[in-house]
Amino acid sequence: MEKDVVNFHQKFSLFTEQWSPKIVAQMNNIQFKLVRVEGDFTWHDHKDTDEVFIVLEGQLRIDYRNSSVTLNEGEMHVVAKGVEHKPFAAKECKILLVEPAGTVNTGDAGGNKTAPSDVWI
Amino acid sequence: MEKDVVNFHQKFSLFTEQWSPKIVAQMNNIQFKLVRVEGDFTWHDHKDTDEVFIVLEGQLRIDYRNSSVTLNEGEMHVVAKGVEHKPFAAKECKILLVEPAGTVNTGDAGGNKTAPSDVWI
Repeated sequence: MEKDVVNFHQKFSLFTEQWSPKIVAQMNNIQFKLVRVEGDFTWHDHKDTDEVFIVLEGQLRIDYRNSSVTLNEGEMHVVAKGVEHKPFAAKECKILLVEPAGTVNTGDAGGNKTAPSDVWI
Repeated sequence: MEKDVVNFHQKFSLFTEQWSPKIVAQMNNIQFKLVRVEGDFTWHDHKDTDEVFIVLEGQLRIDYRNSSVTLNEGEMHVVAKGVEHKPFAAKECKILLVEPAGTVNTGDAGGNKTAPSDVWI
């Protein structure tokens, strides 16, 4: 039985790495991951799942091939399954990702920003 | 393809009812619901799913039969499948629930706080 309270601010104080999702909670097979992001990520998609971005601090832009969305603190966005996207943040931005366990941050695209998908903090 | 940005503050400005979850986004079969809560809810459990509470504003206490957890803004908690719980807020509190589509707010317990589980805003 999970009786823990997760405090996002406290969890962020435990790491400084960027583009390296840290799992803080799980509901059924869905994981909640904190990530520090800055600069440009890799173009990728997730073949089998939608993906949720919630901005906790800062500003995040998610580029699509023909458009983009900009998220500020207190805003969320769902990237649909199979749709190519590329997150970008001009300054460091703190986000909460919600996605199924095992989802790899770069999808099948690979590259040097690929991070382990199973790190709890 | 979902290209909308959900702003929690703006969505809360659209309703004042309490204990009446409003769906703002869906990822696969998982829904994100905004709720205003105040006072005591009904003891209940969810037989088939865990449930996530994230506090966006205010303070929420979740009572268990033999313990409780208190969540402030920027904190989250997972209520495990099948475990009886009762949310409580001394003053109005704004929360984000994450749970599978079709999850009823009172589980099988019923009562006058049971709300429709399919209202989008």
